[in-house]
Amino acid sequence: SSRGSGQKFALSDKVGVIEVLGTITDSKAIVDQLIDFGQNHAVKAIVLRVDSPGGGVGPSQEIYDEVVRLTALKPVVVSMGSVAASGGYYISAPANRIFANSGTITGSIGVIMEFTNVIALMDKVGLKTNVIKSGDHKDIGSSVRAMTDQEKALLQSLIDDVHDQFVTAVSEGRHLEKDQVFKLADGRIFTGRQAQQQGLVDDLGGLQAAIHYAGELAGIEGTPDVLYPAEPKPDLIDYFISRT
Amino acid sequence: SSRGSGQKFALSDKVGVIEVLGTITDSKAIVDQLIDFGQNHAVKAIVLRVDSPGGGVGPSQEIYDEVVRLTALKPVVVSMGSVAASGGYYISAPANRIFANSGTITGSIGVIMEFTNVIALMDKVGLKTNVIKSGDHKDIGSSVRAMTDQEKALLQSLIDDVHDQFVTAVSEGRHLEKDQVFKLADGRIFTGRQAQQQGLVDDLGGLQAAIHYAGELAGIEGTPDVLYPAEPKPDLIDYFISRT
Amino acid sequence: SSRGSGQKFALSDKVGVIEVLGTITDSKAIVDQLIDFGQNHAVKAIVLRVDSPGGGVGPSQEIYDEVVRLTALKPVVVSMGSVAASGGYYISAPANRIFANSGTITGSIGVIMEFTNVIALMDKVGLKTNVIKSGDHKDIGSSVRAMTDQEKALLQSLIDDVHDQFVTAVSEGRHLEKDQVFKLADGRIFTGRQAQQQGLVDDLGGLQAAIHYAGELAGIEGTPDVLYPAEPKPDLIDYFISRT
Amino acid sequence: SSRGSGQKFALSDKVGVIEVLGTITDSKAIVDQLIDFGQNHAVKAIVLRVDSPGGGVGPSQEIYDEVVRLTALKPVVVSMGSVAASGGYYISAPANRIFANSGTITGSIGVIMEFTNVIALMDKVGLKTNVIKSGDHKDIGSSVRAMTDQEKALLQSLIDDVHDQFVTAVSEGRHLEKDQVFKLADGRIFTGRQAQQQGLVDDLGGLQAAIHYAGELAGIEGTPDVLYPAEPKPDLIDYFISRT
Amino acid sequence: SSRGSGQKFALSDKVGVIEVLGTITDSKAIVDQLIDFGQNHAVKAIVLRVDSPGGGVGPSQEIYDEVVRLTALKPVVVSMGSVAASGGYYISAPANRIFANSGTITGSIGVIMEFTNVIALMDKVGLKTNVIKSGDHKDIGSSVRAMTDQEKALLQSLIDDVHDQFVTAVSEGRHLEKDQVFKLADGRIFTGRQAQQQGLVDDLGGLQAAIHYAGELAGIEGTPDVLYPAEPKPDLIDYFISRT
Amino acid sequence: SSRGSGQKFALSDKVGVIEVLGTITDSKAIVDQLIDFGQNHAVKAIVLRVDSPGGGVGPSQEIYDEVVRLTALKPVVVSMGSVAASGGYYISAPANRIFANSGTITGSIGVIMEFTNVIALMDKVGLKTNVIKSGDHKDIGSSVRAMTDQEKALLQSLIDDVHDQFVTAVSEGRHLEKDQVFKLADGRIFTGRQAQQQGLVDDLGGLQAAIHYAGELAGIEGTPDVLYPAEPKPDLIDYFISRT
Amino acid sequence: SSRGSGQKFALSDKVGVIEVLGTITDSKAIVDQLIDFGQNHAVKAIVLRVDSPGGGVGPSQEIYDEVVRLTALKPVVVSMGSVAASGGYYISAPANRIFANSGTITGSIGVIMEFTNVIALMDKVGLKTNVIKSGDHKDIGSSVRAMTDQEKALLQSLIDDVHDQFVTAVSEGRHLEKDQVFKLADGRIFTGRQAQQQGLVDDLGGLQAAIHYAGELAGIEGTPDVLYPAEPKPDLIDYFISRT
Amino acid sequence: SSRGSGQKFALSDKVGVIEVLGTITDSKAIVDQLIDFGQNHAVKAIVLRVDSPGGGVGPSQEIYDEVVRLTALKPVVVSMGSVAASGGYYISAPANRIFANSGTITGSIGVIMEFTNVIALMDKVGLKTNVIKSGDHKDIGSSVRAMTDQEKALLQSLIDDVHDQFVTAVSEGRHLEKDQVFKLADGRIFTGRQAQQQGLVDDLGGLQAAIHYAGELAGIEGTPDVLYPAEPKPDLIDYFISRT
Repeated sequence: SSRGSGQKFALSDKVGVIEVLGTITDSKAIVDQLIDFGQNHAVKAIVLRVDSPGGGVGPSQEIYDEVVRLTALKPVVVSMGSVAASGGYYISAPANRIFANSGTITGSIGVIMEFTNVIALMDKVGLKTNVIKSGDHKDIGSSVRAMTDQEKALLQSLIDDVHDQFVTAVSEGRHLEKDQVFKLADGRIFTGRQAQQQGLVDDLGGLQAAIHYAGELAGIEGTPDVLYPAEPKPDLIDYFISRT
Repeated sequence: SSRGSGQKFALSDKVGVIEVLGTITDSKAIVDQLIDFGQNHAVKAIVLRVDSPGGGVGPSQEIYDEVVRLTALKPVVVSMGSVAASGGYYISAPANRIFANSGTITGSIGVIMEFTNVIALMDKVGLKTNVIKSGDHKDIGSSVRAMTDQEKALLQSLIDDVHDQFVTAVSEGRHLEKDQVFKLADGRIFTGRQAQQQGLVDDLGGLQAAIHYAGELAGIEGTPDVLYPAEPKPDLIDYFISRT
Repeated sequence: SSRGSGQKFALSDKVGVIEVLGTITDSKAIVDQLIDFGQNHAVKAIVLRVDSPGGGVGPSQEIYDEVVRLTALKPVVVSMGSVAASGGYYISAPANRIFANSGTITGSIGVIMEFTNVIALMDKVGLKTNVIKSGDHKDIGSSVRAMTDQEKALLQSLIDDVHDQFVTAVSEGRHLEKDQVFKLADGRIFTGRQAQQQGLVDDLGGLQAAIHYAGELAGIEGTPDVLYPAEPKPDLIDYFISRT
Repeated sequence: SSRGSGQKFALSDKVGVIEVLGTITDSKAIVDQLIDFGQNHAVKAIVLRVDSPGGGVGPSQEIYDEVVRLTALKPVVVSMGSVAASGGYYISAPANRIFANSGTITGSIGVIMEFTNVIALMDKVGLKTNVIKSGDHKDIGSSVRAMTDQEKALLQSLIDDVHDQFVTAVSEGRHLEKDQVFKLADGRIFTGRQAQQQGLVDDLGGLQAAIHYAGELAGIEGTPDVLYPAEPKPDLIDYFISRT
Repeated sequence: SSRGSGQKFALSDKVGVIEVLGTITDSKAIVDQLIDFGQNHAVKAIVLRVDSPGGGVGPSQEIYDEVVRLTALKPVVVSMGSVAASGGYYISAPANRIFANSGTITGSIGVIMEFTNVIALMDKVGLKTNVIKSGDHKDIGSSVRAMTDQEKALLQSLIDDVHDQFVTAVSEGRHLEKDQVFKLADGRIFTGRQAQQQGLVDDLGGLQAAIHYAGELAGIEGTPDVLYPAEPKPDLIDYFISRT
Repeated sequence: SSRGSGQKFALSDKVGVIEVLGTITDSKAIVDQLIDFGQNHAVKAIVLRVDSPGGGVGPSQEIYDEVVRLTALKPVVVSMGSVAASGGYYISAPANRIFANSGTITGSIGVIMEFTNVIALMDKVGLKTNVIKSGDHKDIGSSVRAMTDQEKALLQSLIDDVHDQFVTAVSEGRHLEKDQVFKLADGRIFTGRQAQQQGLVDDLGGLQAAIHYAGELAGIEGTPDVLYPAEPKPDLIDYFISRT
Repeated sequence: SSRGSGQKFALSDKVGVIEVLGTITDSKAIVDQLIDFGQNHAVKAIVLRVDSPGGGVGPSQEIYDEVVRLTALKPVVVSMGSVAASGGYYISAPANRIFANSGTITGSIGVIMEFTNVIALMDKVGLKTNVIKSGDHKDIGSSVRAMTDQEKALLQSLIDDVHDQFVTAVSEGRHLEKDQVFKLADGRIFTGRQAQQQGLVDDLGGLQAAIHYAGELAGIEGTPDVLYPAEPKPDLIDYFISRT
Repeated sequence: SSRGSGQKFALSDKVGVIEVLGTITDSKAIVDQLIDFGQNHAVKAIVLRVDSPGGGVGPSQEIYDEVVRLTALKPVVVSMGSVAASGGYYISAPANRIFANSGTITGSIGVIMEFTNVIALMDKVGLKTNVIKSGDHKDIGSSVRAMTDQEKALLQSLIDDVHDQFVTAVSEGRHLEKDQVFKLADGRIFTGRQAQQQGLVDDLGGLQAAIHYAGELAGIEGTPDVLYPAEPKPDLIDYFISRT
């Protein structure tokens, strides 16, 4: 395939493709790929393929930071697959251009925490918990006691703070007014086509369309060669030269 | 077999066969196969073998896009197996000709979302959930609270938007009026024979019949040689030449 | 054994044996074997060994089509094992001659669909489903709502259409009037001996008897050598010569 | 052991031992062994070791047919182990002589079908089934509806037909009047000693006694060498010479 | 150990030890070991180590038969371990001498059949069974209907017949009057010491005592070398020389 | 460690250590180790390390017998670990000296049988058992019927007989009056320190103390070298030289 | 990647990165890495990457101690990932500078013990426990009896003592008044941005920002090379040179 | 790391570290390590790292004995990890000095036995047990009958005896009056800091602090090299030289 040959000898200009698939739980692998492609002179533009319903706030922000940094070096184009919602949209926001399928599920801008309370279950089963703690909130979110109003307010302020960070990120990435984003950011979801109408997406089309567009941005003529990150392999040299 | 020998030396003109089996969850492998066969000069026509009840909207649309692109290059003939319904029909629509067995299950044109609500179960078991969120709809479709009328409308508009995309795709692929397609697109299923009467299928017959027809379209004399995509193999060269 | 030696050097005329065992879910392997033996000049006649309670309509029809094509080239004799019912009978119908054990279970000509409804169970467990859909019948056969009369009629017409295809196939294969077949085709089962009395089977006897009969049809003197399809093996040559 | 050395060089006359152990589900392996030993000139007589409670009608009849054929070529002696009942007796009937331990369980001549009905269970669990079918009896024996009287009669006639085949086989194999066999054939079981009194067994004794008797029938002097069928092995030659 | 060295070169006279451990389900391995040691000239006497609560009638009788045959060739001494009851005693009876630990559990002379009836369970669960059969007793012992008095009598006569075979075997093996054995044969269990008082055991002692006694019977001076049957091994020669 | 080097070259006098760990279910491995060390001239004394709550009567008696035999050849010192009770004490009794930790659990002299009756459970579940048997006691201890008074007496006499064997063994091993042992033998447990006061243990101390004491008994100067039994290994020579 | 090349030859100045991921259960691996990097002259500064909700007090304190020691040798910068709470904050406190993502969850300063009481469950199930013990509190925290007020006080004093240790550690590491810390240390959680406002965090940013900052502290020009601890490998030399 | 290099060549004076992790169930491995390091001249002092909630009395006492012996040869310093309670404290008591983290959980001096009674459960399930035994207390602690007052007294005396052994060990190891220890020995737990106030611990600090202290005691200058016990490895030499 075109991918394999590009990967091996890397003689020509290429479009690098980085995939963010599934729930975002750790930023390290993606951030490393972004840094590598940023430093790789053969890679003239990058397509960030996002097929993710979101995930943790921390890793989404670290990927977001790296995408921001990368756009200062090279064009970055996002291609949304089946779903690119919540954190999946967060990391897409700073890209130079966003492609989505017309049926992609996107949006869901917002933050949420769920706490499950098992008091009634434990009572039925016949379990009781004794908690010895050093402060009132040390067991905040505890599943074995009711949440106090004070704690609900405390957690809501925490959620609101992160939500503000999220809206700010979208506002800056998409060059939209913050107020405008707040209106879309009540957690609702959009099709790709609806999102385009709201300014959250630029173009309708799949991965191939995004690759071609990135190639154009990078000034590559014709169908661009594509480069994927190398998969980690057992490194024989590592095996013999190990401790510093 | 005829497949193996054709695959190895590729000296003569061939019909390429690409299989879409089971639920459609990812478009990448199929799209890559379509691109490869599109670029392979020995492949003069393509049979897309579909045995699938459908799947995700995003990947179906990306395969659909690629089939459209491919028909500009070479003849594409669809062969429907046991079932080619919903997304399985979506990707078939743009082909130059569609074959189905007379007993194939097809149709099911439309879009659907199911949400399971577990409030009563949690109440019985003795679980309760506290949700802290940044917007009213951040937990849209939540299994632990009732869905509001506003949310039903919001989701219905999303479904209707994708349905319109689906109907448009069938209309364009089958050269039918959009109104005509809407009448068939209430989700109902057809036998291959019934679908033929509705204009959704061109011919009755199995994979062999489709291969022969594709050979004829490509001007291949006699029984055409058949080529399947190469299965991915451990690539020894990859092992030694890895990082760019 | 006689099988092994015959398979390896293939110098003499042979009877090829193709086995259809268990539920019929995929036609590809069987159809490929039928094509191979059809093209193999050493194979002078074919025994189709059927030990199957039936399966999917689509694959049964594709095997049926190929058996019809094969009878134009060489004699085909069916040998029924423990059971050759429904789709197992469908694929047997076009053979030149059908052998069954006197105790074989056969018949069951007809088509059936079963839908399990779990509304009451979900109510007991405490689950409820919200469905958002684009057309009334998109969830036809749904397990979480009642089936409407309109849907029952729609599905019955689909079943009747396939049943008519089945009866036509038996009628043509067995050279029986279609009305005569309809009388036997209410789904009932027969012993091999009863089926013979109804004209659905020609002779009573096991696999060995079928092989001898096929040998006679092919003009082979004495006990015929037998050839089974080659089992797929790891192909070393494939490993080194792979991508076109 | 005497078995191993006999198997390897096969220079002297031997008694071949073929084992039928456990439920009889497939006839192919046993039939192939019977054919092989029938053609093997070093094998002068055959002991069929039966330790089986029976099984399917079809495979029992195919083994029965082959034992009948074999007795025309060489002496066949049956040795019954712990149990040789129903189909285990069926295949023993045509042997030249039957040995049983005095405590062997044998008999159980007859045919049976069991259908489990789950209507009440489904009602309790909260499941309901919609069946769409092409004929009244397509779901004969269905576990989700009551069996009609017509269907009971239909199935009883099928059972009676096979029972008649069974009784005929015993009558011919044991040279007993069919009426006499019918009296023993109400399904009851016997010890080996009781079966001998009824004419269903010739001699009391174990496998060693049967082997010695077979040796005598074959005119072998002294303790006969014993030959078991070769176990299937990975065949290296098959690996390199494969496709015809 | 003395076992290993004796096994390898076999230069001196030996006592062979054959172990019957756990439930007796198959006679073949034990019978083959008995035949091998019977023919092995280096083995001058045999200790049959029994640590078994019994098992099937057929295999017990076949082992019994072979022990009887063996005592005609060489001395056979039984050593009972933790338990040697029922079938475990049956196979011990013909030995020239029986050793038991004083705390061994033995006896349990008799025969038993258990049938579990699940009618009430099926009724509770909501299952019902339809049985179509060719004779009244074809489903004798069925778990889904009550057992008739006629069937109880039929099965009791079968049990009584085998019990008589068991008592006769003990009577002949232990040189006791049959009436005397019947008194002990109501199924009760004994310690080794109690069994000795009843004439069912000759001496109190463990495996080492039995080996020494067997050595004396065989005229071996001093501590006898011991030989265990060879464990089955992958036979390389078998691999290359296989089919006759 | 000292163990490893001692095991390999065996040039000096040693103390052999044999471990009895966990439940005693089989005597063979331990008895073989005792015989080996008894014959090994480098082993001048033996420490039997017991960490076992007991187990089966038969294997305990066979190990006991071998320990008795061994004390006639060499000094035997027992070292009790966490627990050496019931059968664990039985096998310790004949040693020349017994060491226990002050906190070791020992005693529990006596015999016990437990029978679980499931009649009520089967009634609840809806199961019933039909038993056909040849004697009243063939199903003694049956879990599906009540135990008769006669059977309780029969089993109590069996227990009492084995208990007497146990008490006699302790009396002889510890040189205590049988009456004195009976008083301690009501099943109660002791700490090592309590057991010493009762004469059931000689010294308080762990394995190292026992090894040093055994060394002194054997006349070894300084810290004795220790030898453990060789672990069984795959024996390459066995592989090539196998059948006699 | 930059990591790999830095790791192998270590010619230039580097920033070492040590990861504390998940629950802190054992200190050894982390402490060893901290010691190694402290002694490695090529490592000029260290980034401690913390993505942990906390864990055991003991290991947190041992890592804390080692971080304190390390700051005397080289700059230490903490980078908080998704979460760095409780023990995860404890070990971060002594660093020269703390980076967090604005959405990191941190705080949760405090100590907690949970005891689950199963008395009611055991009563329902039908279990009862007899406890024999040497002191009133030997089963403190027992799940099978109620906790006394005396025990609650005893455990609270223990918790308070550890809480005081925690607060002291934060006070010293962050150069905050102990009273000031006590106010934040009621167990509540903060976003990274909120924590910065409270003085618990210095800067907002991800791992890359922390690495750059550490490089600056160490006087490294440009983007610093990064070194991760060597993963443990099978050490061939260890294999041959083992025992001292 | 410093550990590896120390282990391999062992040229300089070292501090040996022996780990007791998790529940103490077997003393052998630890005792062997203590003996080895006691005899190893390169090991000048030993740190016993304890991270254990206790375990069996016997193995704790055997390790205690060996630690006592070892303190006569070399300095022994204990380092307590997360928890060193009950038996974990028992084995620490004789050390020359005890280090604990200020948050270590320690104490829990005492002995306990728990017996679970299932009578009510069996009654509910429908099980009943018949026990035939040789003495009243043979089933002491039985889960299927109530415990008598006599048995409670018997077990309490056993517990009290072991408790006295424990208190004596602490008193001797820590040079405290036995009465003083009894006051602390009611099973209560302490933080490391509390334990220090009670005289149960000498210093607060982690493993590194203990290693440095041990180095000082041994007169090693600077940071001491550390030696861990060799992990058991497959010993090739053992493989070829095995049986004595």
